[in-house]
Parts: sequence; structure tokens; C-alpha cells
Amino acid sequence: MIHEVDYVSGHTRLYAIIGHPIAQVRSPELFTASFKARGADALLVPFHVLPDEFDRTVPALMAMPNLDGLIFTIPYKQRAMAYANEIGSNAQIVGAINALARNGAGGLKADIFDGLGCVEAFRRRGLSFAGKRIMLIGAGGAGSAIGIAIAHENPHSIQLYDLDVDRALTLVRKIQSVDPSIQVERAEPTVKDIDILLNASPVGMLEDERLPIAVNAFDPALVVFDAIVKPETTPLLKKAHEAGCTLVRGREMMMGQISKMTDYFGIVPL
Amino acid sequence: MIHEVDYVSGHTRLYAIIGHPIAQVRSPELFTASFKARGADALLVPFHVLPDEFDRTVPALMAMPNLDGLIFTIPYKQRAMAYANEIGSNAQIVGAINALARNGAGGLKADIFDGLGCVEAFRRRGLSFAGKRIMLIGAGGAGSAIGIAIAHENPHSIQLYDLDVDRALTLVRKIQSVDPSIQVERAEPTVKDIDILLNASPVGMLEDERLPIAVNAFDPALVVFDAIVKPETTPLLKKAHEAGCTLVRGREMMMGQISKMTDYFGIVPL
Repeated sequence: MIHEVDYVSGHTRLYAIIGHPIAQVRSPELFTASFKARGADALLVPFHVLPDEFDRTVPALMAMPNLDGLIFTIPYKQRAMAYANEIGSNAQIVGAINALARNGAGGLKADIFDGLGCVEAFRRRGLSFAGKRIMLIGAGGAGSAIGIAIAHENPHSIQLYDLDVDRALTLVRKIQSVDPSIQVERAEPTVKDIDILLNASPVGMLEDERLPIAVNAFDPALVVFDAIVKPETTPLLKKAHEAGCTLVRGREMMMGQISKMTDYFGIVPL
Repeated sequence: MIHEVDYVSGHTRLYAIIGHPIAQVRSPELFTASFKARGADALLVPFHVLPDEFDRTVPALMAMPNLDGLIFTIPYKQRAMAYANEIGSNAQIVGAINALARNGAGGLKADIFDGLGCVEAFRRRGLSFAGKRIMLIGAGGAGSAIGIAIAHENPHSIQLYDLDVDRALTLVRKIQSVDPSIQVERAEPTVKDIDILLNASPVGMLEDERLPIAVNAFDPALVVFDAIVKPETTPLLKKAHEAGCTLVRGREMMMGQISKMTDYFGIVPL
């Protein structure tokens, strides 16, 4: 005799992450846990959608009355924009979305939450970007989203570095478009006259022992953030910890993003 | 801090039940439990598909490499036949399917398992239809599927009754097409010279106190089956139990069907 499971039924509301490939994603277990923690009978499942099938699959899925939202990962963050009636300002500037949800008026809204997760992680720690001098390393997908989200938080200045000069300059212009009053410029990595150091480059990921910045010692007043999730303590965070800095970890950004996206999906705590 | 769930991840294989409406279905919890009992990392989720969306949704879903099968319920059991490359003999005769799965050769196979669940329930009890004289009450969806499945089991004879004479005669012809050697005829409900009495009519469901057959007492040698799942003990089964008959319940048919469909989906015990 089998025993029925208690986490899926005909009443369960569905969400999905769409990618190609899909097996590597962590959203199903993390978002489903976030939904359960809020008392919702909802699941987020993985949908492997092939590139040739994307354009008939997304509208078919969003036509299901019991499916309320989609997350997009590689390679669909740009392409998915076509299906939204409303696109949030962050996503418009980044040029990509990672969440699509019902807007309550029969249409679909979309936004990108990668950068908002970083802002949320700082907020939960009682840390503000307002008036702060920021050094951002990395202007790729994560760095762009973080830079643009922070530009909404009234920082004093943002210096940003990327190995790819054009990419760095593109992000400089995007940040200026958010708030022309921010002093923003491309720069070499530095912690001189910096309050918050943000790493959004892949340097230090997994077995990579390198630091994204050459520095002898950090000032303990510095706040150091690393977007990398694995390892939990990157070489950069280890060095910052030894100097007595305040650390904000990639996992905190991830949890902040999940929380903001769960809000966006309309799942509010009971 | 939220704790991750352990029943869905990027690796989880997906199955779905498609219907309109959907909230009433029991397959998600029952099939998912069946998959888990066999050690499979798989979920069956509910998909509410609207009639106007059916024809673009089914092909889009079956194009997902991590979705391996679909179950169809009201109103799609006939319409879904169009998507199968191979249709099992039971489904061809019934004219409906309830399961669609990959055939291992790049195509899709389909069959109907309602009646096979009844045969499986009897097999698990060590009961055979071979050589037996059968009275079947009800020639609707469930009755047709049961009659046709039993026709493959070499019974001696099948008498069948339905309030709708045309429906009864149609099923008589379908059973004859399966095996012309079976004595099959339309008849009034009776247990005279009958070994197995099958109720596939809705009489006795939920609060309905009626019996589907007018009879003073059953012979204890009679086997009595009722396809009704709720209540577990229908008025028919209660009377048969009091007479000392062998009973086979609707829930046993349901579990037999789940087991056969889980096999069909390619999920074999570890």
C-alpha cells in the first residue's frame, strides 16, 4: 500500500523555471521552500524548454489558470521580455527579465530581481547604500543588475571595473540613466575612499583561489559583498573577515532575491 | 531561514494530469506517491488546460525533454487520441485514452487504463475472469473500459445492463469485436447463474442508498465488485459482505490502475 504525499494535489498552484539545460537549477527546491514557509499550497517545477519550442510554450503555459508565474534562466532572460505587457524599470535598463507573473488585470508583468536581491540582503542587515562610495567589480549579467539596482538607492558614487572595457562603459551609461546625480566612472579595482566593495565577477568561484582585487589589507570599516554562492566564503570574504570587515554573502543575496520574487508572485505570508 | 524541500529539484522528472476543471483530481498525490514508492525522483502535477488552448499545449508539453507523460481526464479523453503515434487495442475499442507517454522510439504511445485497473485488482486478489459468467451493470465510460478489458481475459459469458439500451448494445458489439467466442448479451440485472457481479454504474455513490440490482440474497460464492470509490463500502458491497461474498472495492481498481500506468510511464521499481 502506498501512502499519499501531502505536497501536491489538484489544488496546488504551479510556478516553473524555464531554461536550457535545466538540471543544474536550484530554484525548484528553494522557491518551493519559500512558498511553504509562507503557508502556500504551491510548487515551483523545472521545465526544460528547447529553443525552437520557446515561443509556443511560454504562451501555452501562461494560459493555464493554475500556473501563476515563470522564472527564466539561461538562455531565455532576454527573449522572455516579449511576453510581458509591463516591464519593470530595472529590467528595462538591464534589457532582461527573470520573472513573469500575472499583473492582476489579465496581463503579464515582468522584472529582473538579481540586483534587487543584493539590495534586499543589505537591507536585512540594516546596511544602506545611501550616500556611500561604492566599488563594483564585474559588469556582466550579475554586475549589471546589481549596479542598476544600487543606482536606485542614492549612493554617493560608483566606481566600476570589468576586464572588458566596453562592457564597463556600457554599465556606466546605464547607471547614469538611472540617476544622473551619482558620480559613476570606470576605474581599476580599489578600496581607497570606498565604503562598500562589491564583487560580481566570477573570480574566487569554486576552486578559484584568486582575489578580484590586489590589496594588502582592508579597513575594518569596509563592507565587503561577494555575489558568489559557492564557496560560501570566497578568498575575498576570507581576507575581509580577517581584517574585521562586515561581510555580506552571495547566499544572502540569493535568499533576498527569492523573497522579493515570492512577493512578486503574489504569495504573501498567511 | 527557510529549509529546502527534498521532493523537487532541477533533476526531477515531470508528469502531469490535464483536465478542465482540475482542482478535483486525485492523481497528483496518488501518482507522486506511487513514483516515490518506486524510488523515482518524479512528480505528477495538475495542469488546468482550457479547451481553446489544448491543441497548442499538449505538443508544447510533450516537447519538454524532462516531461515524460500525461494523464487526461474530463473533457479530454477522446480529444487526446490525436497526439499518439501508437494507440493500444483497449483504447482503440473504447475510443478514448487516459495516458500518453514516450514510446522509446521518439514517438508517443497512448492507452486507457480504467478497465485494466479492474483486471489488475482481481489479479492481485488471485481472482480470474477466465471461464467465468459475468454480470456487468453500467455501460458508460467506466463500464465500457471494464467490459473491454475483461473481454481480453477469456470469460465464459458477459451479460450487461444499462438504462440506456443503445449504449448497452454498443458495448455488446465492442466486446464481441474483442473476442467473438464470448457469449455476450444485453440483459436485466441478475445474479442467477453468475460468478462475478460488477457494478460500473453510479448507483450507490456518495449518499445514494440504492442498490444497482434488486435481489433478496446473494450466494456466498459470488464475487462482487463495485467501481465506486466513495463510499468505500457501497450499499451493494454492504449487502454482499453480509451474504459472505468475496468483495473487490473501487479503491483496489484505482490502485491497480495507478500501478499499471506507473509501469506504462517507464517508472520501474529500483
